[in-house]
Amino acid sequence: MKDFKTIKGSICAPLGFRAAAVFCDIKRLGTGKGSEKGKKRDLALIVSEAPAVVAGMFTSNQVCAAPVKVSARNAKRSSARAIVVNSGNANACTGRQGMRDAEGMTRLTAAALSSFGLTKWIPANEVLVGSTGRIGVTMPMRNVAQGIRACSRLLRRSPKNARDVAEAIMTSDTRRKEIAVEFKIGGKSVRIGGICKGAGMIQPQLTQSLHATMLAFITTDAAIESGFLRNALKVACNESFNRITVDGDMSTNDTVIVLANGLAKNRCLDRLSQNRGKFQEALNFVCLELAKMIVRDGEGISRVICLRIRGARNSTEAEAAARAVANSALVKTSWCGGDPNWGRILCAIGYSSARIDESKVDIGYSRSGSSRILFGCRRGQPTGVVLKKFAPITTAKEFDIHVDLHRGDGKFVIYASDLTEDYVSFNKGDITDPASLGG
Amino acid sequence: MKDFKTIKGSICAPLGFRAAAVFCDIKRLGTGKGSEKGKKRDLALIVSEAPAVVAGMFTSNQVCAAPVKVSARNAKRSSARAIVVNSGNANACTGRQGMRDAEGMTRLTAAALSSFGLTKWIPANEVLVGSTGRIGVTMPMRNVAQGIRACSRLLRRSPKNARDVAEAIMTSDTRRKEIAVEFKIGGKSVRIGGICKGAGMIQPQLTQSLHATMLAFITTDAAIESGFLRNALKVACNESFNRITVDGDMSTNDTVIVLANGLAKNRCLDRLSQNRGKFQEALNFVCLELAKMIVRDGEGISRVICLRIRGARNSTEAEAAARAVANSALVKTSWCGGDPNWGRILCAIGYSSARIDESKVDIGYSRSGSSRILFGCRRGQPTGVVLKKFAPITTAKEFDIHVDLHRGDGKFVIYASDLTEDYVSFNKGDITDPASLGG
Repeated sequence: MKDFKTIKGSICAPLGFRAAAVFCDIKRLGTGKGSEKGKKRDLALIVSEAPAVVAGMFTSNQVCAAPVKVSARNAKRSSARAIVVNSGNANACTGRQGMRDAEGMTRLTAAALSSFGLTKWIPANEVLVGSTGRIGVTMPMRNVAQGIRACSRLLRRSPKNARDVAEAIMTSDTRRKEIAVEFKIGGKSVRIGGICKGAGMIQPQLTQSLHATMLAFITTDAAIESGFLRNALKVACNESFNRITVDGDMSTNDTVIVLANGLAKNRCLDRLSQNRGKFQEALNFVCLELAKMIVRDGEGISRVICLRIRGARNSTEAEAAARAVANSALVKTSWCGGDPNWGRILCAIGYSSARIDESKVDIGYSRSGSSRILFGCRRGQPTGVVLKKFAPITTAKEFDIHVDLHRGDGKFVIYASDLTEDYVSFNKGDITDPASLGG
Repeated sequence: MKDFKTIKGSICAPLGFRAAAVFCDIKRLGTGKGSEKGKKRDLALIVSEAPAVVAGMFTSNQVCAAPVKVSARNAKRSSARAIVVNSGNANACTGRQGMRDAEGMTRLTAAALSSFGLTKWIPANEVLVGSTGRIGVTMPMRNVAQGIRACSRLLRRSPKNARDVAEAIMTSDTRRKEIAVEFKIGGKSVRIGGICKGAGMIQPQLTQSLHATMLAFITTDAAIESGFLRNALKVACNESFNRITVDGDMSTNDTVIVLANGLAKNRCLDRLSQNRGKFQEALNFVCLELAKMIVRDGEGISRVICLRIRGARNSTEAEAAARAVANSALVKTSWCGGDPNWGRILCAIGYSSARIDESKVDIGYSRSGSSRILFGCRRGQPTGVVLKKFAPITTAKEFDIHVDLHRGDGKFVIYASDLTEDYVSFNKGDITDPASLGG
């Protein structure tokens, strides 16, 4: 029984959050190509009317983009007011100029917000920045500056454009990803809203230390203590964004940021609050739903598989086994064909760092969410169930795989996609058409 | 200056080796499909007329096929006489029955060889066995038994059919892979011949302990001490088969076996011999040429990339960086498009376990074997070289990538392929056509 309900409004559902997006042609200068494909918005602002407690989780890739470095630093402060985000350019592998540009985006945003009367004067480090798009190309700062001002102007006129922002952060995504929930904390209504983007280069390994091209922005009007918010976000990410994989590539830009402005006026939540579980549960739900939207919209994918490993010696080994399977090219192509090829799954587990005994492994398939498992192998040996019996399960858009290693209590669940010809076509680009070359 | 020359004859070039292959329809019983595609030979014997010193390297996958277990055990003996090998069925994930069948193949071979007068009576454990094909299906032993007898009969009549054997071990391979070399050891001519197969599920990690679907069989008439042969094979594999990857999947069946029968009558080679280097050099060459043939024939591939990592803190980290890049779905798809996407390469190195400093990394491209490197990034920043300058390099069938991490002396070279739509089509199978489902 969930203690919250899903509501509309996405990141603008919580009190006191404004959001808007504009088109400022960020791709053009980088690629030499114009905006023939239509003016998809590419720069967005998310602003809290009141100072907000901030928490962030960022890619653990050693090569991390300038905006990630800037946001990770600014997320360590006690409060923040705004997030500026762009698509079309990841500002990654751009060296010192990249850092200057990411800093520049926070300064320009702080200045524009106060000059348009959206906030009082705020320092640049109360602004966080997220970027996604092509790697290795410097930001077209003239366009960005113009976009930030245009977006601020728009925010004053029309404060609630969550849908436009969810669209502006899309790159290879085919649909917006947004959600909001509402629940009660001591009689007060509290809301959490979230948007995200991501379709390729997806296997986030978010850590709280400074170390995507998955971006997620979460707003809440909960009053919450900073340390508790950070911990709650870490817990939620580990159960959601850190459990998805599309292609096994961890991006240089993965970012999850949450702003909590306290306007719900609930009694401030901390790690001792009676209601802390309610908040955590709602935040987990928001993050997991957003994470699943990413897998379902994975580049070129045709199926989503929920892979459940149990019986590993410990959870670390369960995770290792799960990632080996979920990132095996041969397993993923078999999923594409609707082939219950448990031999390839067993093979991938065998080369993972999980210690296993082949003669103990069970591998079975079920419809999504069902506990009626049809086993392909038990104790490492074929069950002899004929292939066509698996077809109704394994040719569905979503299904579950259940692996029991029978070695201990370690468990891990991962949401993965198949590997299709379309994924390859989409990502291979064509050197004769530079605009086709992906980030 | 090489101390050896390439000759014809493959595994039958060394003195005293016989080889033949027959069709015995090993696939049929497993899949319910007949042999409409023509009678491609699927069972082969390689026999030494004299007792041979034996060495083997086998998959380090914890899930290893029955024939691997049997061969690894028999390779520990001081001598062997024959190898029986089949395609169409990997005899993997087949439990106790699989072990009985693999043992059965060695027994049937030993019996047939003596009954047809090819050897005196030999014990079953002087026979090694290799299998490749579908996983999780038990061997059709009636067909196998008939094949072994037919093949032995053929061997007596016609002893030198190396080409047929190279063909018989093919599965998704599109061409035979064979080589032979000749060199002098103290005035005596010595020969090494080799064949191999492999196109998918290729990232061998061979170890000498019991721990493909790459199979390689090497024959030599060198007189050689057992311990030295084992070490020489280990060295050669680490510089060849262990440095290739097609799809990053390590098979349950990877096997390399060498038989050395001493008929060249050279003074016996050991680790103190003056000529040990010559033998090692020739064996390295044979293994590397065979390994490269595997990558060039990788399933659906369109390009082969030689990726050279240097400047890592140590060779372990260099290898980790190389494997992360060579197995990144995004890097491999960019190679498919001829896209010099060094950003994706840097990103993959960033999430590898190699410690790097982004601001020190150089990434460049050259024609295959050339030292004229065109850099995409230096010290972590774009060189600004326009894309079209890279095109003549990166759209070639083979090219080299040079990465310098500038952190130490660690080096690693890996031969990798791109990821294409054809790879996916080939491996996804189709559950409505069980015969299409791969191993």
